Amino acid sequence: MDFSHLDSEGRARMVDVSGKPVVRRVAEAGGSILVGSKVITALRERSLKKGDPLSAARIAGIMAAKKTGELIPLCHPLPLDHISLEFQVKEDRIDITARAVTSARTGVEMEALTAVSVAALTIYDMCKAVSHDMTIENIRLISKRKQQDR
Amino acid sequence: MDFSHLDSEGRARMVDVSGKPVVRRVAEAGGSILVGSKVITALRERSLKKGDPLSAARIAGIMAAKKTGELIPLCHPLPLDHISLEFQVKEDRIDITARAVTSARTGVEMEALTAVSVAALTIYDMCKAVSHDMTIENIRLISKRKQQDR
Amino acid sequence: MDFSHLDSEGRARMVDVSGKPVVRRVAEAGGSILVGSKVITALRERSLKKGDPLSAARIAGIMAAKKTGELIPLCHPLPLDHISLEFQVKEDRIDITARAVTSARTGVEMEALTAVSVAALTIYDMCKAVSHDMTIENIRLISKRKQQDR
Amino acid sequence: MDFSHLDSEGRARMVDVSGKPVVRRVAEAGGSILVGSKVITALRERSLKKGDPLSAARIAGIMAAKKTGELIPLCHPLPLDHISLEFQVKEDRIDITARAVTSARTGVEMEALTAVSVAALTIYDMCKAVSHDMTIENIRLISKRKQQDR
Amino acid sequence: MDFSHLDSEGRARMVDVSGKPVVRRVAEAGGSILVGSKVITALRERSLKKGDPLSAARIAGIMAAKKTGELIPLCHPLPLDHISLEFQVKEDRIDITARAVTSARTGVEMEALTAVSVAALTIYDMCKAVSHDMTIENIRLISKRKQQDR
Amino acid sequence: MDFSHLDSEGRARMVDVSGKPVVRRVAEAGGSILVGSKVITALRERSLKKGDPLSAARIAGIMAAKKTGELIPLCHPLPLDHISLEFQVKEDRIDITARAVTSARTGVEMEALTAVSVAALTIYDMCKAVSHDMTIENIRLISKRKQQDR
Repeated sequence: MDFSHLDSEGRARMVDVSGKPVVRRVAEAGGSILVGSKVITALRERSLKKGDPLSAARIAGIMAAKKTGELIPLCHPLPLDHISLEFQVKEDRIDITARAVTSARTGVEMEALTAVSVAALTIYDMCKAVSHDMTIENIRLISKRKQQDR
Repeated sequence: MDFSHLDSEGRARMVDVSGKPVVRRVAEAGGSILVGSKVITALRERSLKKGDPLSAARIAGIMAAKKTGELIPLCHPLPLDHISLEFQVKEDRIDITARAVTSARTGVEMEALTAVSVAALTIYDMCKAVSHDMTIENIRLISKRKQQDR
Repeated sequence: MDFSHLDSEGRARMVDVSGKPVVRRVAEAGGSILVGSKVITALRERSLKKGDPLSAARIAGIMAAKKTGELIPLCHPLPLDHISLEFQVKEDRIDITARAVTSARTGVEMEALTAVSVAALTIYDMCKAVSHDMTIENIRLISKRKQQDR
Repeated sequence: MDFSHLDSEGRARMVDVSGKPVVRRVAEAGGSILVGSKVITALRERSLKKGDPLSAARIAGIMAAKKTGELIPLCHPLPLDHISLEFQVKEDRIDITARAVTSARTGVEMEALTAVSVAALTIYDMCKAVSHDMTIENIRLISKRKQQDR
Repeated sequence: MDFSHLDSEGRARMVDVSGKPVVRRVAEAGGSILVGSKVITALRERSLKKGDPLSAARIAGIMAAKKTGELIPLCHPLPLDHISLEFQVKEDRIDITARAVTSARTGVEMEALTAVSVAALTIYDMCKAVSHDMTIENIRLISKRKQQDR
Repeated sequence: MDFSHLDSEGRARMVDVSGKPVVRRVAEAGGSILVGSKVITALRERSLKKGDPLSAARIAGIMAAKKTGELIPLCHPLPLDHISLEFQVKEDRIDITARAVTSARTGVEMEALTAVSVAALTIYDMCKAVSHDMTIENIRLISKRKQQDR
């Protein structure tokens, strides 16, 4: 059982990954924001108009993924090769998934999780004039993998 | 039913708050990260040593609160007067609360919610060498209020 | 004739505004990106679909306005009360206007100009897969004023 | 005709470049700020003194180039290998060129364009105490190329 | 004896200043970088030419002062009203002073100290091609005061 | 004698490193903050309690190292592979060392020096409620090396 971000004295550090190879790495994360049916109805009406209210959340998630290394203290800065977010508008909630790809010495799951979290916070911010009765739930890693031989 | 962040054409904007008074505003937000009992046991052992593994998460949450206006597109930049985070280590999870105070023309709940979210992500990052079987749950506003007459 | 950002020796500094009153200030700026008719046609087709391609530029402009003090060395950091952007899609170009409001000791024109510039750069970035034959033109202040008695 | 930053549904995303090779890439961009002859005269007088008033604009452009991926939502973060700016002081305007070099999977033109834009905004900011009668014009890509075999 | 940034349990927090009045506050800080006489000679030669090599350090210090709240975890974000830096080129070193002014609920000394530190680091960076035999010394607060009745 | 950050005209630029190989590079830097024996006594008492007061300084130094390219104008942005800080609490001062590793085209000493500087400023900020009689001293490079054949 080991916390690699802590040294043998329990002190925080950014783990040395310089000995690891640069590999293509992919991660997917998901999460939901429960907004209630009133907000969903309002959102659906908006979607029929010109401005898609989820656009701001998508852009916010993409930009936050690029800031992950700045937000999470012990996270390595990564050159993101790709980031995208999907939203599924359900009866009483919005499901969010993010997919991140990098070519780096360490994995990209924190970038995917950060994208989902900030997209959810952005939806919260945009809907809070309608209701504060919202919760962000089930933020989790869906998958991660690396592809050595490309 | 209205999304104040969207104008009548559905276009995103930052709402004009210049007509509102500067008021002391307080918000509290909460959330949890389910980490499983193995991680909790490891964390508790660490706590007996010198480095408190939750310190990094606390600092990350405080610093993220100061970045809220930079992360959430339509959020007003606020001069934070105070931000603090509390962690409660339970059997299988860590409960996080954050309290934010500002003297501003608009509320401070997004700062409290962002602090909780980034603290949870930081715990995720520090524990993921032990297990990826974690979820962030129940991020929500606990309370908000303003104090006109000070 | 005076450059207030330079002292009597010609050294850069941020002018001391602490003696000035906090006043509501409004500024409007404009600019255009000439993209050619092919890009305009492609943009118009996109607009009929779900994602409005100008949404990303609007969000980028709003977020850049909040970063103005970080980008322009001698610019005072300002608490933005409001920022919005408008786009007019013409035959061969997109006209951009931004409106910024603050309650501060100094004016908000750099914020409006920065919003227009970064929105134009974002449109450039999104359209450059179609053509590089684009220019950003006529970025200028349209108006600025302050309102003492509110 | 294709906007690579939008998927087939018109949703914004950061294009996946992980399949592309790391190549040395160079881009040059240009632009002008029309400041009028009064400002030019004042600038020339300053240049004879110790502080070169264009130094701040040069530094601002260099630092903005490093922030490009943070400003332009769908732009990949790039490790800049080089960035430089040149200014030519003409009768009524200042011409700006920027040259950016990277070793990356995607091009560096947005970095050069951002450097020019922010340098122009910085000149605007430093000269606006003299006059607001300025416009930023003709921001464009001058050249871009990649060098596979180094 | 008290660390106000730590609560009674020793946990980091940003102190609540919302009960304090907004007051004009001034701070001055100083520091030196010992660079040796070879670097000084080279710097003096440069100064006779067009580009003042200390300009970059001045701009870096000004911009860093604006980032203080982002760098120092428990530091309150402050709206800087003024920041300026002075350099004195001595026989074997450069003396740096910074002066910061704000209208805020808490003092501005960290901004002045950060400006000096980052200016010194920038000089280090620009001179390190000549020699690595440099040290940054004596970074300290020179004075701080507040002016209640303005 | 040459300042590589200045071109032949004395103009600042970011040196072109695109012709250099990607190599593992390590740098160590050190520095001290003289805080006096009263602060040291108070710090030691705190250390016996749960929260280690140096944790915030450690996290601040790590996060600042990742921001080096953003703070130092002509510094190349680097993908940090590792960063760690050590503190030694002496009778009247705290000695700080930082170690940074990258795989890049240019060295990592500015990252190590920035980590030390910001950690020292953070300690200053946390102790200034006890006393302002502190100075930051002797910030210097301890060692740097590159490892070609890994």
